[in-house]
Amino acid sequence: MNKGNGCPDLSILSFTGSFHGRTLGVLAITHSKAVHKLDVPTLDWPIAKFPRYKYPLEENIEYNKKQDDDCLKDVEEQIDFFNNEKKKHVAAIIIEPIQAEGGDNYSSAYFFQNLQRIAKEKDTIFIVDEVQTGLCATGKIWAHEHFNLSNPPDIMTFAKKMQTGGYYYKNELKVDQPYRIFNTWLGDPIRIIYLEAILETIKRDNLIELNHQIGTYLLFNLKKLCKDFPDLINSARGLGTFSSFDSVNASVRDNILQKLKNSGVLAGACGDKTIRIRPALIFTQKHADIFLSKLNSTLKSI
Amino acid sequence: MNKGNGCPDLSILSFTGSFHGRTLGVLAITHSKAVHKLDVPTLDWPIAKFPRYKYPLEENIEYNKKQDDDCLKDVEEQIDFFNNEKKKHVAAIIIEPIQAEGGDNYSSAYFFQNLQRIAKEKDTIFIVDEVQTGLCATGKIWAHEHFNLSNPPDIMTFAKKMQTGGYYYKNELKVDQPYRIFNTWLGDPIRIIYLEAILETIKRDNLIELNHQIGTYLLFNLKKLCKDFPDLINSARGLGTFSSFDSVNASVRDNILQKLKNSGVLAGACGDKTIRIRPALIFTQKHADIFLSKLNSTLKSI
Repeated sequence: MNKGNGCPDLSILSFTGSFHGRTLGVLAITHSKAVHKLDVPTLDWPIAKFPRYKYPLEENIEYNKKQDDDCLKDVEEQIDFFNNEKKKHVAAIIIEPIQAEGGDNYSSAYFFQNLQRIAKEKDTIFIVDEVQTGLCATGKIWAHEHFNLSNPPDIMTFAKKMQTGGYYYKNELKVDQPYRIFNTWLGDPIRIIYLEAILETIKRDNLIELNHQIGTYLLFNLKKLCKDFPDLINSARGLGTFSSFDSVNASVRDNILQKLKNSGVLAGACGDKTIRIRPALIFTQKHADIFLSKLNSTLKSI
Repeated sequence: MNKGNGCPDLSILSFTGSFHGRTLGVLAITHSKAVHKLDVPTLDWPIAKFPRYKYPLEENIEYNKKQDDDCLKDVEEQIDFFNNEKKKHVAAIIIEPIQAEGGDNYSSAYFFQNLQRIAKEKDTIFIVDEVQTGLCATGKIWAHEHFNLSNPPDIMTFAKKMQTGGYYYKNELKVDQPYRIFNTWLGDPIRIIYLEAILETIKRDNLIELNHQIGTYLLFNLKKLCKDFPDLINSARGLGTFSSFDSVNASVRDNILQKLKNSGVLAGACGDKTIRIRPALIFTQKHADIFLSKLNSTLKSI
């Protein structure tokens, strides 16, 4: 009915554990929690495996490298299958620099560099979704800067800390006709004024450097807590203050979160058994110490 | 890949000429202009015919009634075909009270009442999209109030004049689990404060009544201009100040719009050859007179 000229059978490759949003198209590339997708029709698009590392990284180099290679191979195979067999050309790959909603899953610079190479070889657009990781949360303006890519992503999406949803794109992706991309509230001026003040504050108060420093301090101490309470938590990880650790299971995780909440600390759940820490950019060592001390008491009490 | 438990093959019935948005899901129910849909994959969902009336209404009663009946029949047939043959259950019907982007196409109270009856009989949700028609533009708060429906729509969407996008829904459609519907900016407080001030102003200044009065005056005079310039314009129509007329073709239409613009009047194009008038709610007779006088001069000059 609806098919035909101008509406080709294109697809977008996403990854297991990904979260890119809740409307119909982005739900088709979202695979973090079943509850998001209940009752919503979806699209038959390729989903490749995202690496799942073991921690500490320095003790699991070989295992994690194999994760990267297996997942890259899966990406290539999925693209070939959809391009050649299913005839739904993979127009784009979309990936989070760190899978947040899916459980704070990291992948390496090696993985990202090769993913970008594959995208180029397969003539598919490389989209990096920085909605949750963007604007200095990871100790750099954009998390994908940690990957030393040879070339910027073709498209990069942002929202949250940026005050409004949007995306950057390479010039060659500019649409060739007006009104192909348009909405009533394009360029919301209030949000731009907010953002300007936020950017000025980040610069004035050296918040990127602060975030990097406090993140290093936080991670050092989270790793220490993992050693002190190995029966409760493990796998501390982070970039900047964008950090997290796993609990041994979901019920221990939820218990820790509840006790933290009762002591005045809001932390978030993600993935199956992960606790994520997402402080504001003005989080200092004083705040980190309060958090670490309350986390310590909480773990002791369990 | 992506199919399976919890992701049923549901569909949504929309109408020829409709506009419901630009993201992937709503593009599948949008059929006003080809440029919106270029290169975007779409869904095989049913599209029924929307009535296309002849004007003046009072001289085309029989023709227009047949339009209604033909389109209602098409709706029933499409739903049966998708439910029974295609096995993509029609979960919802979505319709604009007036198709704006598609050319200011109206349908009757009779059509809407019967559409709601069919929706109920076929166990499908009846969604009315008031994004462009809502918040007093048509001389009532919601345009569908003009149709004397026996029961409110199951879902009604709003945006634009409402300052933020959202929807009302019947209590039985409330989702049964948290996080099935959620986003970062749920309940944007600034917009609610704006909206409160707007609603107070509408009430204080009787803007609904004003809109109704000025709309009546505007339409009376647009009809007169159609009689004075039958070789250029025809089919004046409107509810409140939400009004429009057709040009004889797109090039005459674009010529009129350009000349109006040069004389300081911004009017919009919609559909193939329609000019739509969308004044703010504070539009008074003084403003209507300026517009009508400039439109008169423009038409004389062609």
